[in-house]
Amino acid sequence: MISGILKKVRENKPLIHHITNMVTVNDCANVTLAVGALPVMAHALEEVEDMVKAASCLVLNIGTLTKEQVDAMIKAGEKANQLGIPVVLDPVGAGATPLRTKSTWRILNEVKVSVIKGNSAEIGTLAGAGGEIKGVEAVKSSENLLPASKELAKRLNTVVVVSGATDIVTDGERIAFVNNGHYLMGTITGTGCMLSSVIGSFCGVEKDYFRAAVAALVVFGLSGELAAKKSNIYGPASFKINFFDELYNITEEKIIEGSKYKVE
Amino acid sequence: MISGILKKVRENKPLIHHITNMVTVNDCANVTLAVGALPVMAHALEEVEDMVKAASCLVLNIGTLTKEQVDAMIKAGEKANQLGIPVVLDPVGAGATPLRTKSTWRILNEVKVSVIKGNSAEIGTLAGAGGEIKGVEAVKSSENLLPASKELAKRLNTVVVVSGATDIVTDGERIAFVNNGHYLMGTITGTGCMLSSVIGSFCGVEKDYFRAAVAALVVFGLSGELAAKKSNIYGPASFKINFFDELYNITEEKIIEGSKYKVE
Amino acid sequence: MISGILKKVRENKPLIHHITNMVTVNDCANVTLAVGALPVMAHALEEVEDMVKAASCLVLNIGTLTKEQVDAMIKAGEKANQLGIPVVLDPVGAGATPLRTKSTWRILNEVKVSVIKGNSAEIGTLAGAGGEIKGVEAVKSSENLLPASKELAKRLNTVVVVSGATDIVTDGERIAFVNNGHYLMGTITGTGCMLSSVIGSFCGVEKDYFRAAVAALVVFGLSGELAAKKSNIYGPASFKINFFDELYNITEEKIIEGSKYKVE
Repeated sequence: MISGILKKVRENKPLIHHITNMVTVNDCANVTLAVGALPVMAHALEEVEDMVKAASCLVLNIGTLTKEQVDAMIKAGEKANQLGIPVVLDPVGAGATPLRTKSTWRILNEVKVSVIKGNSAEIGTLAGAGGEIKGVEAVKSSENLLPASKELAKRLNTVVVVSGATDIVTDGERIAFVNNGHYLMGTITGTGCMLSSVIGSFCGVEKDYFRAAVAALVVFGLSGELAAKKSNIYGPASFKINFFDELYNITEEKIIEGSKYKVE
Repeated sequence: MISGILKKVRENKPLIHHITNMVTVNDCANVTLAVGALPVMAHALEEVEDMVKAASCLVLNIGTLTKEQVDAMIKAGEKANQLGIPVVLDPVGAGATPLRTKSTWRILNEVKVSVIKGNSAEIGTLAGAGGEIKGVEAVKSSENLLPASKELAKRLNTVVVVSGATDIVTDGERIAFVNNGHYLMGTITGTGCMLSSVIGSFCGVEKDYFRAAVAALVVFGLSGELAAKKSNIYGPASFKINFFDELYNITEEKIIEGSKYKVE
Repeated sequence: MISGILKKVRENKPLIHHITNMVTVNDCANVTLAVGALPVMAHALEEVEDMVKAASCLVLNIGTLTKEQVDAMIKAGEKANQLGIPVVLDPVGAGATPLRTKSTWRILNEVKVSVIKGNSAEIGTLAGAGGEIKGVEAVKSSENLLPASKELAKRLNTVVVVSGATDIVTDGERIAFVNNGHYLMGTITGTGCMLSSVIGSFCGVEKDYFRAAVAALVVFGLSGELAAKKSNIYGPASFKINFFDELYNITEEKIIEGSKYKVE
């Protein structure tokens, strides 16, 4: 189901326009490059429409949002919608503050989003299922998360990704569970943001965004697993270096051998 | 004196709300995670009060300040004061430009700060003892730094930390000298900012901020020393990776064995 | 021709004031430190004049520009011009959006720039020779790039640097070609930005900016070559660590042995 998407990313080098947070922006750029796409970051209201025109996907991430930045996200998103360019939304910290929850809905009301990717608390908040967040980290999930995510995907006509030990992907009809990943990925900041960049890179070449998201989750999680096996890891920072290198070195062969997912 | 604080950080995972600069923000987040706390960065005026409510400590760092950002710092700081949440201030570049010196005093006049951490020139400037700064690096210290720091701590009812080859900590009564650290820590950007994140993480679980600051300096400096002993270091970048890993791997046992400080 | 400049950087530790993008700002700071200079980042309109006064060079980079940031660049640049402090401009993405192209010309019309450093598409756009850019990456060069760059340098009375497999440096009279470098440098984000920081560091101690730029290109590219030879490289991230370390470890001897450039 997912084979061939990575190859297309590397052949087409899709341009991924990010409007994102200042904490993990460098990692998002490097991860985008590592999987074979081209990152560009641009948030000025005067240029976001011009930049997104050249892009194959738009990634919006509210990790360090301001009102002005959300305005730029909506402007870029509307242009992307007009041109049929996919939009990935990472509602970082939705549920943690009213500004984050409201801004997420502002974007969702104005922009048709192709994929929403969040942790269990962020998606739980948006799906009305609840959950608990501490800053931007999910600390408690709702038991209704799965049906609520499916309902949210249906209602918004989008793909919903819930990242976690087992990732969930649903477009309201199909559901996939992805079991690739490693606990060390949670010891560095921004893994969630980086995942959104990889999902964006894959949506830039694959119009079935459900498939694109599943493939991205497998590639991302599996790279983490392969990195964790390296003998030169002593903690989060050396893991991160190896993780980025494995994203660059991942192949279709490794994916076929190591992918752990099922679709229902 | 300092044992047990690290353990509490790892058990409680305090949320550390940062309003900080764009240069070292990713390192600050990763260092916070490495010692066992949870970082969150949020600076929009519309959400800083909501975010700080959930936090165990607020860290303010003026490294790439603007007027709007200082407004947000004060708003967050006032809310922290109301709720009894500690505030750590890193007056990066105080003395280098009038904006930095004035903004530091704007914050100090509006917000009760628990710990001020600076290099010898920054603290020297605030304490009226002088010193010389080149950009954000101290190049000359005042001979009156110690009594002036003590006086500053007393006057502002705060803990003052002066980072350097020998770090000074004082609450106006007690004085501690910490000799942990390694020169390679000065070859990477942002060590001072990262230290403030670690102090913030420790203040998030220990109400005696003098003790919290001493413990943070020992843990931070000792991790640098342990990293410097690794055989895979060829310069600042490989040192940094090892330094972050050692912060993650530090234990009470290593602290008992390696701490170098005295309290007067 | 280029010997002695690196030594002067390490002896004088020139302060390099950056107004730059949020993607690569940490890397720019670390690279500046690695070659022996001191970085400072400051962009508030209220302080850029005060900060640049203390600096030996001003580096302007429009990678994530806003109108307000360009205003600050011009204010700092005018002050640098008054004081005879060199200004390096990195017109990231010129040609990709009208805002980037216009902002570059706004700066060039208001500020006398010592060095403009761009890729073939950015310089091609400014020189009127054309070229094609995808986000911020050059994907097609003009055949007229060399004479057009020379003409641009003459017209603006500046040094033009075109980075690429073979780098071009020209002041309108002299032309240098630099062949140091390694393809792995293109697998990480921000190599271009970091190069501008190194050029800035060298212009901070050498008044012949043509020579300073050539020396910076040699040091930067050669450090990449030396890093690529290390046995502990598995991909872009481990390369980057080694690259930074080699910049720190580069010596006059290594430069004499490894430099690959010719001046016409």
